[in-house]
Amino acid sequence: MEKRIGKGISRRKALTALAAAPAAMGISAPAVAQGNPGVNWRMTSSFPKALVGIDTAATVFTTRVREATDGKFNIQTFLPGELVPPLQALDAAQDGTVECAFTASYYYTGKSPAFAFGCQLPFGLNTRQHQAWVLTGGGGELLDEFFSQYNVRNIMLGTTAAQMGGWFRKEINNLDDLRGLKFRVGGLGGEILSRLGVIPQQIAPGDTYQALERGTIDAVEMISAIDDEKLGYVDVAKYYYYPGWWEGGTVTNLFINRDKWDELPETYQAIVHAAAAEATQRCLAVYDGQSLDALRRLVARGAQLRPFSQDIMDACFRITNETLDELAQANADFRKMYEPWKKFRADISTWFSIAETPLDTYLQRALKG
Amino acid sequence: MEKRIGKGISRRKALTALAAAPAAMGISAPAVAQGNPGVNWRMTSSFPKALVGIDTAATVFTTRVREATDGKFNIQTFLPGELVPPLQALDAAQDGTVECAFTASYYYTGKSPAFAFGCQLPFGLNTRQHQAWVLTGGGGELLDEFFSQYNVRNIMLGTTAAQMGGWFRKEINNLDDLRGLKFRVGGLGGEILSRLGVIPQQIAPGDTYQALERGTIDAVEMISAIDDEKLGYVDVAKYYYYPGWWEGGTVTNLFINRDKWDELPETYQAIVHAAAAEATQRCLAVYDGQSLDALRRLVARGAQLRPFSQDIMDACFRITNETLDELAQANADFRKMYEPWKKFRADISTWFSIAETPLDTYLQRALKG
Repeated sequence: MEKRIGKGISRRKALTALAAAPAAMGISAPAVAQGNPGVNWRMTSSFPKALVGIDTAATVFTTRVREATDGKFNIQTFLPGELVPPLQALDAAQDGTVECAFTASYYYTGKSPAFAFGCQLPFGLNTRQHQAWVLTGGGGELLDEFFSQYNVRNIMLGTTAAQMGGWFRKEINNLDDLRGLKFRVGGLGGEILSRLGVIPQQIAPGDTYQALERGTIDAVEMISAIDDEKLGYVDVAKYYYYPGWWEGGTVTNLFINRDKWDELPETYQAIVHAAAAEATQRCLAVYDGQSLDALRRLVARGAQLRPFSQDIMDACFRITNETLDELAQANADFRKMYEPWKKFRADISTWFSIAETPLDTYLQRALKG
Repeated sequence: MEKRIGKGISRRKALTALAAAPAAMGISAPAVAQGNPGVNWRMTSSFPKALVGIDTAATVFTTRVREATDGKFNIQTFLPGELVPPLQALDAAQDGTVECAFTASYYYTGKSPAFAFGCQLPFGLNTRQHQAWVLTGGGGELLDEFFSQYNVRNIMLGTTAAQMGGWFRKEINNLDDLRGLKFRVGGLGGEILSRLGVIPQQIAPGDTYQALERGTIDAVEMISAIDDEKLGYVDVAKYYYYPGWWEGGTVTNLFINRDKWDELPETYQAIVHAAAAEATQRCLAVYDGQSLDALRRLVARGAQLRPFSQDIMDACFRITNETLDELAQANADFRKMYEPWKKFRADISTWFSIAETPLDTYLQRALKG
């Protein structure tokens, strides 16, 4: 199939039209033919503007693509609900309603549990490890194969780093305190916690504050200090737990309709890859570099920081392993990614345990005196 | 100053020449004028090809720039010594001998100790933290101001993550074992270790293996398992120590001559930023994702893994603080960056100590069973 440039002018036709003119132009014909064609894309997002950290990724990505193409390749972001509901972003990219979607693949585990691998699993890879798995550890190829079933290309766009464990109206000291707890927590994390007696709640982000205030739910987790501050939970639930072991390094997704991707000039494909990487870097820099200030403000407003207890962590880890093993047995797509992913997690964790994490830990302790 | 496009044709002249032709072309004039002009740059590198990890950054960067411009913006990499010696890469970019240099800013601490901030300080920021400092923590602005004295723009290009502590011919059990040790270690790390009796050696990478084999030196540090394997040290020094506290997250540098940067079309500037970010992401993925395999091969060849002892770490941390304080007192450029950098390090370390590092540590222990 011929690649289309501009508003439906094929590359071949453009070259033919231009071939007559080069002498009059004073520059060579190929230089003209290879100019930047006008392309307008719609990107539907699953994330409200209030998620200021993750929103950085969308802004940097679309801005850089526009700058790199002299304004010719415009990707317009649509907020959740403007074109399609937030959790139908994948479907819209899949069927070509939009050219692309900015979303989190684990939103779609209802279609297949294997979607979790595109984004994050409980006790999974941290953000650097996930990026390494995708780029050099064979994960990218496995994900490409899986996502092609849904007619989309997947490119990493944005990451939250390790998330917090959420806001609780009462202290959670042990496993007993989890029983009957109505906790707004999504995906596999909710599934695992339900086996410990938690009653997972699915509530759209915009409705979570009121539910927590009214006591309809007992706890909510969203992302991390920056975004949680904007959502105001501290005013209705004081206990702020960590770590969010179900989201230890979430990487969000740009899903691109495969036909639209194939129609894109190769130069624009290259720019999309590079701009998405830069957007991910900048997004991570926001979470890493600006979270402590947000946390300090939250503590000043009354937040009580609490770590999950060792017995809670151990029980959750044990049940996570059981759950993932069961999913692998029941679902072929999940199984195909789970085994190599698990080996990669073991290896890269061993590597990080030698120089990286001990040096971080040493410095954290030394600086505290 | 007018921006130059192509081989010396100014943007204004190109627009004038084109204004007469659009009707004949069938497409609008601006689309033509905004095509990709031919630009050829030379990038002199301080890093030999044998540093396979860091070399990834150069390859991804130059390839992506070429792809994103339809082959019009070509950055050719020159290995150390091909155009200029490895440690004069900055000078070559500064005086315009080359358009840009791929190097490590701490190679130039002889000019000013403040160069260390562009890259890495002992017990400094890990790679995510350094990227956050540069992109959102005020570090980028401080570095821009400093590097403008040397007529270069600085863009992050490549990162090694936390490095290993190097190869030693004998075990280093305590501080006494450091006295008189001839150790090939560069920059501030060498300065700090000299206060503990080490005799730092400056030897070009290509000569280190022979020096270690002959016993001219007792120890050498280079980067990490991937690169160290290629350099073959394991055959002449069995003890492989960690962590390399003087390089806890080294980020390498693209230094661009400021005049050449200003002449670059804005689209190409945008592409350089994005491609450098992607190259850094890919380089980190190589170090994170492929190091354990290299380490396993090294252990199979006889490498003995050893952590630096607590008293060595503590003494090095104490002397690092003394040394950095002295440098800040003696040098205004260093002082200007040191105070905000130190505050940023304390804050971001605190943030990482809440969810990020404890979750990494938990998983590392849990996976080991």
